Amino acid sequence: MPADLPDDAFPTTNGSLNRKLRMALVGGGSGSFIGRVHATGAVLDNRAEIVAGALSSNPERAKKSAPSYAIPEDRAYTSIHELVEKELARPEDDRIDFVSIATPNHTHFEIAKTAAEAGFNVVCDKPMTFDYAQAEELVKVVEGTPGVFALMHNYTGYPLIRQAREMCLNGDLGEINAIRSNYIQGWLRDAIEQEDQKQASWRTDPSKSGAAGAFGDIATHAYNIGRFMTGCLPEEISCNLKAFVEGRKLDDYGHAVVRYQNGALGTVTASQISHGHENNLYVEIDGTKASLVWRQENPNELWVRQNGQPAKLYTRDPNAPYLSALAAGSCRLPSGHPEGFFEAFGNVYRAAFDAMIARSEGTSFEGRSETTRDTLYPNVYDGAEGMLFVTKSVESSEQNGAWVSLKNDYARR
Amino acid sequence: MPADLPDDAFPTTNGSLNRKLRMALVGGGSGSFIGRVHATGAVLDNRAEIVAGALSSNPERAKKSAPSYAIPEDRAYTSIHELVEKELARPEDDRIDFVSIATPNHTHFEIAKTAAEAGFNVVCDKPMTFDYAQAEELVKVVEGTPGVFALMHNYTGYPLIRQAREMCLNGDLGEINAIRSNYIQGWLRDAIEQEDQKQASWRTDPSKSGAAGAFGDIATHAYNIGRFMTGCLPEEISCNLKAFVEGRKLDDYGHAVVRYQNGALGTVTASQISHGHENNLYVEIDGTKASLVWRQENPNELWVRQNGQPAKLYTRDPNAPYLSALAAGSCRLPSGHPEGFFEAFGNVYRAAFDAMIARSEGTSFEGRSETTRDTLYPNVYDGAEGMLFVTKSVESSEQNGAWVSLKNDYARR
Amino acid sequence: MPADLPDDAFPTTNGSLNRKLRMALVGGGSGSFIGRVHATGAVLDNRAEIVAGALSSNPERAKKSAPSYAIPEDRAYTSIHELVEKELARPEDDRIDFVSIATPNHTHFEIAKTAAEAGFNVVCDKPMTFDYAQAEELVKVVEGTPGVFALMHNYTGYPLIRQAREMCLNGDLGEINAIRSNYIQGWLRDAIEQEDQKQASWRTDPSKSGAAGAFGDIATHAYNIGRFMTGCLPEEISCNLKAFVEGRKLDDYGHAVVRYQNGALGTVTASQISHGHENNLYVEIDGTKASLVWRQENPNELWVRQNGQPAKLYTRDPNAPYLSALAAGSCRLPSGHPEGFFEAFGNVYRAAFDAMIARSEGTSFEGRSETTRDTLYPNVYDGAEGMLFVTKSVESSEQNGAWVSLKNDYARR
Amino acid sequence: MPADLPDDAFPTTNGSLNRKLRMALVGGGSGSFIGRVHATGAVLDNRAEIVAGALSSNPERAKKSAPSYAIPEDRAYTSIHELVEKELARPEDDRIDFVSIATPNHTHFEIAKTAAEAGFNVVCDKPMTFDYAQAEELVKVVEGTPGVFALMHNYTGYPLIRQAREMCLNGDLGEINAIRSNYIQGWLRDAIEQEDQKQASWRTDPSKSGAAGAFGDIATHAYNIGRFMTGCLPEEISCNLKAFVEGRKLDDYGHAVVRYQNGALGTVTASQISHGHENNLYVEIDGTKASLVWRQENPNELWVRQNGQPAKLYTRDPNAPYLSALAAGSCRLPSGHPEGFFEAFGNVYRAAFDAMIARSEGTSFEGRSETTRDTLYPNVYDGAEGMLFVTKSVESSEQNGAWVSLKNDYARR
Repeated sequence: MPADLPDDAFPTTNGSLNRKLRMALVGGGSGSFIGRVHATGAVLDNRAEIVAGALSSNPERAKKSAPSYAIPEDRAYTSIHELVEKELARPEDDRIDFVSIATPNHTHFEIAKTAAEAGFNVVCDKPMTFDYAQAEELVKVVEGTPGVFALMHNYTGYPLIRQAREMCLNGDLGEINAIRSNYIQGWLRDAIEQEDQKQASWRTDPSKSGAAGAFGDIATHAYNIGRFMTGCLPEEISCNLKAFVEGRKLDDYGHAVVRYQNGALGTVTASQISHGHENNLYVEIDGTKASLVWRQENPNELWVRQNGQPAKLYTRDPNAPYLSALAAGSCRLPSGHPEGFFEAFGNVYRAAFDAMIARSEGTSFEGRSETTRDTLYPNVYDGAEGMLFVTKSVESSEQNGAWVSLKNDYARR
Repeated sequence: MPADLPDDAFPTTNGSLNRKLRMALVGGGSGSFIGRVHATGAVLDNRAEIVAGALSSNPERAKKSAPSYAIPEDRAYTSIHELVEKELARPEDDRIDFVSIATPNHTHFEIAKTAAEAGFNVVCDKPMTFDYAQAEELVKVVEGTPGVFALMHNYTGYPLIRQAREMCLNGDLGEINAIRSNYIQGWLRDAIEQEDQKQASWRTDPSKSGAAGAFGDIATHAYNIGRFMTGCLPEEISCNLKAFVEGRKLDDYGHAVVRYQNGALGTVTASQISHGHENNLYVEIDGTKASLVWRQENPNELWVRQNGQPAKLYTRDPNAPYLSALAAGSCRLPSGHPEGFFEAFGNVYRAAFDAMIARSEGTSFEGRSETTRDTLYPNVYDGAEGMLFVTKSVESSEQNGAWVSLKNDYARR
Repeated sequence: MPADLPDDAFPTTNGSLNRKLRMALVGGGSGSFIGRVHATGAVLDNRAEIVAGALSSNPERAKKSAPSYAIPEDRAYTSIHELVEKELARPEDDRIDFVSIATPNHTHFEIAKTAAEAGFNVVCDKPMTFDYAQAEELVKVVEGTPGVFALMHNYTGYPLIRQAREMCLNGDLGEINAIRSNYIQGWLRDAIEQEDQKQASWRTDPSKSGAAGAFGDIATHAYNIGRFMTGCLPEEISCNLKAFVEGRKLDDYGHAVVRYQNGALGTVTASQISHGHENNLYVEIDGTKASLVWRQENPNELWVRQNGQPAKLYTRDPNAPYLSALAAGSCRLPSGHPEGFFEAFGNVYRAAFDAMIARSEGTSFEGRSETTRDTLYPNVYDGAEGMLFVTKSVESSEQNGAWVSLKNDYARR
Repeated sequence: MPADLPDDAFPTTNGSLNRKLRMALVGGGSGSFIGRVHATGAVLDNRAEIVAGALSSNPERAKKSAPSYAIPEDRAYTSIHELVEKELARPEDDRIDFVSIATPNHTHFEIAKTAAEAGFNVVCDKPMTFDYAQAEELVKVVEGTPGVFALMHNYTGYPLIRQAREMCLNGDLGEINAIRSNYIQGWLRDAIEQEDQKQASWRTDPSKSGAAGAFGDIATHAYNIGRFMTGCLPEEISCNLKAFVEGRKLDDYGHAVVRYQNGALGTVTASQISHGHENNLYVEIDGTKASLVWRQENPNELWVRQNGQPAKLYTRDPNAPYLSALAAGSCRLPSGHPEGFFEAFGNVYRAAFDAMIARSEGTSFEGRSETTRDTLYPNVYDGAEGMLFVTKSVESSEQNGAWVSLKNDYARR
């Protein structure tokens, strides 16, 4: 066993709140992948517990799935509306604190709006909404309601992604010239949506997934990671989307070129038809002083290179003197003890929880900075920007890859 | 997001028990690494909750650490004896089900014995006891008490380690010829125990750690993984231990050669003085039909090689047709979504929980097979064998590497 | 040492010619990198010897460099014209057989034309000419002269690149959907051309390098490898070139999207400003039946993936039953004994030598197939296509990334 | 293309000798793997040419193989005796300079002795002789004759192995504590010697290979690399050899523990029965200040690690400021342009050639230092030490792994 973790390695209590935060899960009925991940990531630090859910709009399935989350029968709801109504009817000290949304894309908006307007905090899976219009409306909803709104761009929770961001922002890389983001998968190589595979069915259905397929599902992550790491602000985009699998209604492959306001050139590639590629998200950043490479499938490593020096392998290590306090503090285990996908989710939740505590204490937890994003967790503005990215990608692709503006007021470093 | 997980991908409830199992954590006071890992791994599937603890023998520290585990003040005990006494005094339906032991080695025996004799199930960190005599006694205690006893050889919980075991046992590798196990770390390169680093201090103190240092702490894992993967039974051992750091009382480096009963030749190397190596446990197996290589720092991959064929990279993939049901069923996430250290702990707990449920249902959960180990979780016999390995390693080393018998009645395939 | 190589593993003699081929090297004066590589690769199989050279247009340097190639003083010329004149004056059985051109780009055309028109075989480094007009003219020259013309797209000589090509052409990958080619270097990160670094100076000088910098120097390789591997024919291109280093006159970074006639989508990225990247050429191919990944910096490995199967690592292995005869026959060493850059050069030379022998025997060695390229070595048509790629890349970039046709009569599978 | 190579990057001429060295190859008849490697490596820098050979003791095969090395018929001999006699009969300025020996082990001694006593320089493949007695005798022969004697421990020619040596010798690693050398192959997994596979037949035949199989063939390399890298002097050895393949007369697997005089602990593992492992030689060194890992199958990389710092990847790079002059000067290509097996051979030859030139100039080229080996190329003392290693390994194994002294007067840092 390796070096000590500092006593305060990571917070495992909610400070002045002095109790666990109470979570309601929306979505996550049996067979749901992402619902289970939310449920696991949210409680990883013992700071939250699931007490209610609307796991499915199918009443039978909703009830049947509840025990697997230890949700009591009387809090196993079948809609966000029932959930909100009945939770609000409970005494304040027995009411949920936040709603986690893990449903197909087309339902996010209504659920998020309903929960936010009821005063609850919200953690929403991405993409934030079905389309950009909804996203803009949701921004207004969130701005007009008191709660925390966190968007689950889970990859931003990886310690070494955060390290990369801090290195970029503090100038370790110099000026950023190039951002190459790729998200390569193979699971939609065949038309499995025609065989009623649940994950595939809604993701390839324009009425549920939105205007884009792979670009909405995964290119948004790839683009977001590049934006999060570098803080470069977008200027315009040229995009080409393809549906290679016969009969598929949405893109399963796509490529975009992004020009950033500082002159950097970015590329975003997304594939769901690359045989045998599992979840191959990788990002390469070139700065005038150094370059970075990170791969999601081995997230505990970050390559840092400078001409004339040996390539350096930064590892996820809470004790590494070369890691920033934020990156080091995003680790739960000593180096060499692999962390993974759940922990990254847990880290986004951790930041959202800190904001929820701040809110409960009456402290300001958010405020739009003119220059830098103001929350560590991806927020509603990141969500709106993500939807703009999808919308503009589709728009460009429909115009044969013409340049389309990506400028927007939501984007911050 | 990738392919569906089957509805019953992994159990998240306790079946007929119909409630979470109640856990008491012994050890785990602030600054404890392994206590936190037990606490996280045990609850990962929502099948258990921590309700009590004896986090430290220092009363103040015990109380102070309790909130971080959400342990109520009245169940934050300061010794196993207080814990057992007060828990037994509670009504049966409000009493803990099991005790997890995450204390330094020299205290395991008394805690385990006390808990087992009180009728509780026990999950004990490794090495099981301070010495082999204690281990033999603990075997008798466990055989004479009704509870489950699981030893936390956590690496056996990795899905691809289990895959390797099944490939070996079902003959995919043919006859096993060679087992090379290595566990290389660097964190004890300097005499940090002299600077009062907690993890280092007790691990290098013969009165707390036992007869061996690195060999007790990590070579036991390396040896255990080789045994678990292959099922080969040991014949004899030749060992050389070294303390390279000046003033250190226990080995920080060591190497053993192991002869197995089937003629296989094994090697076990353990280092805690290899600069920059984090937790580099790797195992290579040679069979007459195929060979395997697995590395803990990237546990989601297993190399399988056969002459005349491309090397094959098996990945942790719950849907992979080439993985055994056990390995596939040990996954919580689709392929490409990295799992890590916590999940492996969770998998050992999962198997122990299944046994606890079986016990609660009056079903037999264990029975010594003549040929094959009878529990998926490492049990008291594995613990005894591990202590024998440490004892005989030291004995051989003291005799200049002479061959010493490793035969024992505890060993099963 | 590993398995036998077959007796006829690779040809080391020139068959009926019964002597070594006589080579003249043009370029390669002291400090030349690529001249030395030609000199080494050409003689690797003992089938050629360097007997003459025009190593530099600077007479002193030409003389001074000659001994390092064991070129006798009287055959150390100072221009292609002197070389041709004096060699033609020698008796036929003492005359050079071929000229290898390893000079800066802007001089290729005249040298190649002069040598070809004198009846000599030519091996020319890439890019073939200074511009596309020259390339078209050179096609005509070569078509009207009797000699072999080989273009040194050296990466096509790697055994596993050839394996990839054969897998694509024989349908192992199904229909090709995507080709991602990247060539990432860092050596021009700083304005070293201003410090008179020789390699940098001419490569960043439009009067010597041509219309493009990185795109002419390395993107041509990346594009060529994708074309060579897949046989997909190009339709149109959209390109964005950048010069990130201040004061640089040619692109040091660029990105192109290529549409292929079969509907496949390609991307080509070239960078010479990515800190610490050495010669990171990598190509990813997606087909409907399988996908491939190959990286030049570890050229002895090729990843082959299919959904539902373990990823397979093909290695360069002359005895591997899974490699094609061509790939296996392109190896000089058993598997695990690394081959590299020189050997790839050697393989292109080997194919060119076979054609030279055929020519000497009066056998046809080339003839334009309607469907498939007719020489294993890259030829003058490949060179013309490469120049078209550069030309059209620049043209598109100057039009803000507009789509520009890449169709041409030179392209063959 | 990357950075300039310095003008004098590597010597390509023989200085005052002003001509190529003339080589005779003994062994290397058709089907010989290692003969071809010698022939290729020796001429790689254009400093030598093959002019004669005794390629086979079978006259017909000797003649038939000659053209593939461009050896003229009248210098294609059938024995070392014929070779020596006839070459000595030629005028001095037309006579060979050195003999390269690439025959099975049992013939090395006589060939080397004959060539040395005739005054020729010798480059001999390893292991140097059939047994240790021959080795000791050959030391005396070489000491009593004027020529250069180089032993082809080819792996010492890799630039990064040389870098590792210099880092160890100059103290960058501090005191050396551990040396783990492994050489894992799979090609003798089956009893292919019974199918008359040439390479396998003599290597598994005690009358041709010597007292050991895998340990003579490859463990000698692994041991030699550890010795070469660290300069640690051996004290004693404990060894266990096995023949796992039925009917095999020599070990195909073995493991040794080596104690060094400075207290370091070494291990040497050799396998020829590990499915799918090609030529997996890897070495790990632990020092008090840093650790190293190097793998032959990717020889262009060397890992250097220090606690508290990112792991560093040193690459083979002639321009790297962090590489020693020797390592940088052992490169023929810029970084990222892979070098391999032939180049390592070439580097040993290069050092031997330098000594041959020195001899021709009447300069001393060798002199036994009391502390450090005096030639960069492995010499007759390294060969004797290698034979002692094999002899003592077998002796220890026959005594059930008893410790046997490895001390010897040949060993130098």
